[in-house]
Amino acid sequence: MNLLTQLALPVADRRRLDFLLTAHRLTSVVRVNRLLDGSRGESSAEHSWHLALAAVVLAPRFAPQVDLARVVTMVVLHDLVEVDAGDVPIYDEQGRRDVVALEQAAAERIFGRLPSDQAGELLGLWREAEAVETDDARFAKALDRLQPLLLHWAGDGAAWAARGVTVGQERRLVGVVHDYWPPLGPLVDDLISDAQRRGLLGDS
Amino acid sequence: MNLLTQLALPVADRRRLDFLLTAHRLTSVVRVNRLLDGSRGESSAEHSWHLALAAVVLAPRFAPQVDLARVVTMVVLHDLVEVDAGDVPIYDEQGRRDVVALEQAAAERIFGRLPSDQAGELLGLWREAEAVETDDARFAKALDRLQPLLLHWAGDGAAWAARGVTVGQERRLVGVVHDYWPPLGPLVDDLISDAQRRGLLGDS
Repeated sequence: MNLLTQLALPVADRRRLDFLLTAHRLTSVVRVNRLLDGSRGESSAEHSWHLALAAVVLAPRFAPQVDLARVVTMVVLHDLVEVDAGDVPIYDEQGRRDVVALEQAAAERIFGRLPSDQAGELLGLWREAEAVETDDARFAKALDRLQPLLLHWAGDGAAWAARGVTVGQERRLVGVVHDYWPPLGPLVDDLISDAQRRGLLGDS
Repeated sequence: MNLLTQLALPVADRRRLDFLLTAHRLTSVVRVNRLLDGSRGESSAEHSWHLALAAVVLAPRFAPQVDLARVVTMVVLHDLVEVDAGDVPIYDEQGRRDVVALEQAAAERIFGRLPSDQAGELLGLWREAEAVETDDARFAKALDRLQPLLLHWAGDGAAWAARGVTVGQERRLVGVVHDYWPPLGPLVDDLISDAQRRGLLGDS
């Protein structure tokens, strides 16, 4: 944003504002699922906000051992790379593999707009979220799979129907929840069982 | 959401999911400013996400004494009452006063969907944010005024022009930033001075 050169602020502060303006483009990245009022697709910014709220509400019950500030920071910034790389739905498994290098470059470009110490710190947190090895990252990843399932279920399965998603496919995808954060397993199982009972997911 | 009665989960967990689905309606509440690509108005959910990101990026430099987990939780839930009460722009000063009672009732209804201990805790945090007395709440409030200013400025003042906002009006509104979190004062002053130089705000 060239506009930032016109400001009198210290360069480091202009870089922070530049980062925030670049990040705001995440509001233009549209995901598979619709808003609950059906008016348009959910943006990745809205998804990230809803994950932060889910972390606040679910951590005390299901993940008291995580560091909430770190988890919320992770979910708030985990999708920023989509500003450059776009959103590739989890149903597109080949596409998900192909986009990895693009996302790495995007992370370096986008976090690199910040002053270098802060860029390093947040890039480190983004990489931790991607690696899914620590408790904070594992809980964040499980939320990231639970949230769309909850919305698809509440939206009478419209997003599933549009892509012809089957029970087996959805169970495999949310297997990530069981792997990364077992205490959330019963939630996803119950949602999928109810969706299956109501015929919202294809057979097989 | 009656659907929730169909689930086998414990009632307290169904209430958490019900709260998250109710909260998601914040994606349908549209604010004054446009996305930077001009395609539509920013939703209050997107605004809340951007505030959380701003807290992450600006707190280490401007507010090292705040508790980041509490600040981020506040900004993530501060606008949930708009699900019931709608967004009243800060430029509508009478409207802002009129909506206070409605927002109080909305907070009780929306947070009241959670299990009672968690409802009490988050309602308390929402009220703390509204009262703007603690450091965490004061920093959150200052961010809430800084963020739209940054977007209006980056969007060449289109949102200001649409409402005929003047320099004097904008300076008075962002006076809140100086009052609540003086270290952020130079940021808002610099943005307004540049906007004035470029003729993006009305005179007087």
